[in-house]
Amino acid sequence: MKLPDALLAALRSHFAEGSLTTDMAERLAYAYDNSRRNALPDAVAFPTTHEQVEALVGLCREHRVPVIARGRGTNTTGATVPVDGGVVVSFERMNRIVRIDPDNRLAVVEPGVLNGDLQQALKPHGFFWPPDPTSSPWCSVGGNLACNSAGPRTVKYGSPRENTLGLRAVAGTGEGFRCGTYTSKGATGYDLTRLLIGSEGTLALITEATLKLTPKPSGLRTMRATYRDVGAAARAVARIMAQPVTPCALEFIDDVALKLARDHGGDSVPVAGAMLMIEVDGEPDTLPSAVEAVSRAARGEGLEELKVAQTAEETQALWSARKALSPAQRTISPNKINEDVVVPVSRLPELVDGIKALAKKHDVLIVSFGHAGNGNLHVNLLPRDDAERERSHACLAEVFALVIALEGTLSGEHGIGLVKREFMPLALQPTTLHLMRNVKAAFDPDGILNPGKLLP
Amino acid sequence: MKLPDALLAALRSHFAEGSLTTDMAERLAYAYDNSRRNALPDAVAFPTTHEQVEALVGLCREHRVPVIARGRGTNTTGATVPVDGGVVVSFERMNRIVRIDPDNRLAVVEPGVLNGDLQQALKPHGFFWPPDPTSSPWCSVGGNLACNSAGPRTVKYGSPRENTLGLRAVAGTGEGFRCGTYTSKGATGYDLTRLLIGSEGTLALITEATLKLTPKPSGLRTMRATYRDVGAAARAVARIMAQPVTPCALEFIDDVALKLARDHGGDSVPVAGAMLMIEVDGEPDTLPSAVEAVSRAARGEGLEELKVAQTAEETQALWSARKALSPAQRTISPNKINEDVVVPVSRLPELVDGIKALAKKHDVLIVSFGHAGNGNLHVNLLPRDDAERERSHACLAEVFALVIALEGTLSGEHGIGLVKREFMPLALQPTTLHLMRNVKAAFDPDGILNPGKLLP
Repeated sequence: MKLPDALLAALRSHFAEGSLTTDMAERLAYAYDNSRRNALPDAVAFPTTHEQVEALVGLCREHRVPVIARGRGTNTTGATVPVDGGVVVSFERMNRIVRIDPDNRLAVVEPGVLNGDLQQALKPHGFFWPPDPTSSPWCSVGGNLACNSAGPRTVKYGSPRENTLGLRAVAGTGEGFRCGTYTSKGATGYDLTRLLIGSEGTLALITEATLKLTPKPSGLRTMRATYRDVGAAARAVARIMAQPVTPCALEFIDDVALKLARDHGGDSVPVAGAMLMIEVDGEPDTLPSAVEAVSRAARGEGLEELKVAQTAEETQALWSARKALSPAQRTISPNKINEDVVVPVSRLPELVDGIKALAKKHDVLIVSFGHAGNGNLHVNLLPRDDAERERSHACLAEVFALVIALEGTLSGEHGIGLVKREFMPLALQPTTLHLMRNVKAAFDPDGILNPGKLLP
Repeated sequence: MKLPDALLAALRSHFAEGSLTTDMAERLAYAYDNSRRNALPDAVAFPTTHEQVEALVGLCREHRVPVIARGRGTNTTGATVPVDGGVVVSFERMNRIVRIDPDNRLAVVEPGVLNGDLQQALKPHGFFWPPDPTSSPWCSVGGNLACNSAGPRTVKYGSPRENTLGLRAVAGTGEGFRCGTYTSKGATGYDLTRLLIGSEGTLALITEATLKLTPKPSGLRTMRATYRDVGAAARAVARIMAQPVTPCALEFIDDVALKLARDHGGDSVPVAGAMLMIEVDGEPDTLPSAVEAVSRAARGEGLEELKVAQTAEETQALWSARKALSPAQRTISPNKINEDVVVPVSRLPELVDGIKALAKKHDVLIVSFGHAGNGNLHVNLLPRDDAERERSHACLAEVFALVIALEGTLSGEHGIGLVKREFMPLALQPTTLHLMRNVKAAFDPDGILNPGKLLP
């Protein structure tokens, strides 16, 4: 599909030379994201103002041309792949930190600001913004908001939905609007802010966000606990979450992942049935009692070793296994299927056991690790050839069915995008999906915003 | 308006004798709420199951009869007054705590459970549900969710929107649905949960809620700081909120309110230009450093006295001024106008000064106090006769205009209901209101749910 000449001409009156392109090399660069799915857009726009986004969406609506918002394309679900062509709106040049307001514990940013850059800018003020995806140095705040992306700290500090006060955005009608507040509390009408967060660009394009900041605790202590088996580790997670001191990270790594990490990361990675990485933060004089409380909960049947790092070097050594994991997986399978299912914490032992059984049944390699404090597990299927790839897909459907049976859901932080859309009816009732479609129509009556994503 | 006989007969097939009434005495009892507005419903229903609510809404939709959900009517905005008649659905008999699940830090409740009863039931498990309106012993969780009702603890622990994982509900179509998750993290489709919270029964009737629980800290320390004037106190609030230890209550009382409390509460109430009540919670061995950090921030230009309670009796004595306030106001003006505006914390000094100027200009008595840590001030106008009542209303419009000019919003925790509806265009852009109307239509195409509320 080529864009209508009239549309292109009209767009050019709002976008200067170099900020709107139909060049094939550029289009190729914006055809894919970290899902490795691929589809060519008809044009790529690089807005720098809210008004440009309003004009673009309004014009595309007139011509019924798809509009796909894009942060930095680090998502793993194909949420930014332009499956129906259209205009990709890359927010990479709309990347100003508009205001840092420590007195009111908030920051106003444009969507293209990188998560890592924001954290750096907040540091001198003694604050941070809690969402911390592993891709933090390269992912944008706009993308974090679109996908409700989280990370290890979510267990204590929440996801973007708990850490955003207000938004400015452009709906599928081309109308700009503001929602939410510039205050830490509000009960003035419907919560459109949270509705947009996690909507993956299907309801509106976010052009500005007012983020809620959290004071950065000055102290951090890292612990590593190894267990005889995954069940013992999962039970320890439930014990840790049932006592009052909430860790700021509570990461789980299963035996398969540990073995993989050890093969690639060397002897510093422990041999064990499962491992927990635990971090607690706070002011320095409160840390010893916090470490003691969490350690008490981590101990129990099946614990093999509990180490508390005393220095920065020791902390780094404890994290080495977790760090070795990503490169190790890539070596085995460049086509890894990376899921992020979530179950109630108490059901983690059943999930982990169930996944082991499915790996055996379908004869595929699965490593599981992730944010256990939220019951959020990265289930990575590592097919090494086409036959394994086929078996992996059959296995995946059963993984999702297991998760739903355990009262869990499809995604904790990656979202739905293209790749999990077909599984949505597993997780949501027809009436709920029907209401979501109505909400979609309320914001985007012509269905031009990121078509083919999220809703089945 | 009388209900159509066919509707009444059909309803009776779903509601046994005594659970649906058209008796005038009963209708009168459900005609008003704490706003003191008044309008007679045509019938009152007392469902005990989700299915009954589905049937009721479906039938009322067929006959285009309004349906008004009601918790315990403690709201102050007229949100549950049936201004167009119809059926009031009182959830007072749907009041089971379905499940308390400490391992997963959640509880499942029916909407009629009283907030205070829930807190009592959670105590033995070491958890609490953070929203704590002053009406906690008498208000229902369903009402708290409908209005996003908060309280002093919100400054540290958030409002219902931050403390609810999932809902079961019935939309205006009569269709039941579930939304949200049974997990502490989720990125599976649109966030309908938060959309329903604070929607004041205009989108759906909540029939079950999965609430996120927080471990209850075992220690609490109470401080009272008095200041030369309201500006000095407001600046102390901003200092307290800019350091890492977040208090679990940070309440402000202005000089007029203090004088009133002293007249009624006696000598234990201090004479001062303004007062802050501050509470910090935590584990006992962390409390001294928390108290020290907050005290340091509370000190500064204009501080007159800082007292830290050492015993339960001292704590009670420190709170006496705040406690004396409500009865004192009622004595002066049974028709008090109770607002709950909110501004960014750093703008509190301007808000407080501005309100003083408006009180003088319109010659009305205004006392201000409230949840200063969130910038959420209860601005109470106390008219003593009809002339003052008229002047109060003129003054109120200017109070709202001031709040908006300070980047604040109309309501922090009471909501909009009937009484603040006309002011919504002050706070929200026409495009935002238009989207909210679209969302309303997405859930309630015939506009039968709580008509005349929230949206202007």
